[in-house]
Amino acid sequence: MTSSGPAAVCIDWGTSSFRAYLVKADGTILERSESARGILTVARGEHEALLAGIIGGWLSGGALRIVMSGMIGSRQGWLEAPYAPCPAGLQEIGASMATIETRTLGAIGLVPGVSTFDRDGSPDVMRGEETQILGALAAMNRADGIFVLPGTHSKWARVEAGRITSFSTYMTGEVFAALKDHTILGRSMEAASEDNSAFAEGVRAAARLERPGDMLHAIFMTRTLGLFDRLRPGQLSDYLSGLLIGAELLSGAEGAQEAIVIGSPALTARYCAAGEVLGMTLQPSPEDCAPLGQLALLAHWRG
Amino acid sequence: MTSSGPAAVCIDWGTSSFRAYLVKADGTILERSESARGILTVARGEHEALLAGIIGGWLSGGALRIVMSGMIGSRQGWLEAPYAPCPAGLQEIGASMATIETRTLGAIGLVPGVSTFDRDGSPDVMRGEETQILGALAAMNRADGIFVLPGTHSKWARVEAGRITSFSTYMTGEVFAALKDHTILGRSMEAASEDNSAFAEGVRAAARLERPGDMLHAIFMTRTLGLFDRLRPGQLSDYLSGLLIGAELLSGAEGAQEAIVIGSPALTARYCAAGEVLGMTLQPSPEDCAPLGQLALLAHWRG
Repeated sequence: MTSSGPAAVCIDWGTSSFRAYLVKADGTILERSESARGILTVARGEHEALLAGIIGGWLSGGALRIVMSGMIGSRQGWLEAPYAPCPAGLQEIGASMATIETRTLGAIGLVPGVSTFDRDGSPDVMRGEETQILGALAAMNRADGIFVLPGTHSKWARVEAGRITSFSTYMTGEVFAALKDHTILGRSMEAASEDNSAFAEGVRAAARLERPGDMLHAIFMTRTLGLFDRLRPGQLSDYLSGLLIGAELLSGAEGAQEAIVIGSPALTARYCAAGEVLGMTLQPSPEDCAPLGQLALLAHWRG
Repeated sequence: MTSSGPAAVCIDWGTSSFRAYLVKADGTILERSESARGILTVARGEHEALLAGIIGGWLSGGALRIVMSGMIGSRQGWLEAPYAPCPAGLQEIGASMATIETRTLGAIGLVPGVSTFDRDGSPDVMRGEETQILGALAAMNRADGIFVLPGTHSKWARVEAGRITSFSTYMTGEVFAALKDHTILGRSMEAASEDNSAFAEGVRAAARLERPGDMLHAIFMTRTLGLFDRLRPGQLSDYLSGLLIGAELLSGAEGAQEAIVIGSPALTARYCAAGEVLGMTLQPSPEDCAPLGQLALLAHWRG
């Protein structure tokens, strides 16, 4: 294998999505395959056949190392890989990798998730985001920082000397969807193109809140501001989004003024816009951090 | 009509429930009728026939004054009665009552809702709760206090010199249902008899939160405490309930140590229990406050 040839197959297998990358040793992506075949769509015992069907062609030129991260390593996935506790960096996470021996694809490295306990002793977990963070550190040549990975379950992670020292999950995306689709708030909403001013107004409203329970009151303003014609039906969804994301930023950053965002371009832009309203500097990471993190972890895999 | 005879028909007609009371002038309830015929189940133009069918028998002995409160006075109800703005007591709300002239039931008094604006100028509204508060004031012989009406949309109202001076809506009940039925949190929950210790643990967790956005993180603990076997599947629902109600209490009371609860016995007991954990004294109001408030308002009706 020359240095310009493929070195590994990197797979980010989440709850609702599947992404595979054929990569060179320096992280260059040669080919990619994405689908909605998340772990929830795959029955026990069918993972190997599905995977072979997708990446089999990439392996025809010779065996490649294969590494997976994400919810595929959870109890609902292929094999449960126990969490590596914080603080956790390349060494700790790499040493905790599990190995799946397959008949048709050889040994597959499985990245574990990471666990932490907050100051009250309450546990928190991530699976997949740790690999993206490690990839972002490699791509940005950094060893420290605050990282936010927005989404259904947003993660805010603190990294010191290359290790994730603590993190918190925020159910922002899922709460937004539940409020919009399953409460009275959605009834007055109308679909419209993105309204940046309504979003910014929601972010500013979040900044005015004081107590944790104020959120349960503030979200109701999405209804009353519509009732009193202060917001149009097409603005209500963006207002609610700004309210929730603004509150997440102010809580997740814990007073810090800078963070790095790892996420889809659209969601990253939204978080950066919210940060701007709040006087925070949110910097997008390079794209495709997962395979970069997986490549770095492969060097520590004992499989 | 003697003082021991019926004096009025009082109707509390909400979004999802209908309650009618045949009452004496002193508020004694002679008969009652309750059903699930909330306003969402009644088509425009059918309110009078439905009402006549339910209370017609009570009127056979002679005409009685009829008064209604609740969402029946909203845009989605029978007739929209414009909100009376805070501060609002018997005089202001009574003077703002609308009148519905009917063919078969005569004139019906319609209690308006009440509106307020918080210090940021954001509007809030109630319809029906103002009447219950006025009834509680009459029943308890009070003119001041903080009142909480727990439910789908909990209301926290401040009363001074017999007038509601301000109030806030908390979407606690609806948020709880949306989180339980439409997010990952519900997946690990199992039905069980009420668990007071898990509820109290949720209330204590709410008291440890600091920032508004912390709620978006704290609710995720309902999942991780289950994942780490700190709570049993049958305890998770009560933990989440305690977390939300505890946060509501700490925000709604705004530092006050005492409040009066107007609600169903079960929900009132829950709020009182949460208050106890937080060192607050929550006192239940007498039951059936709505007809008492309606009777008091009838004296101010210009219909």
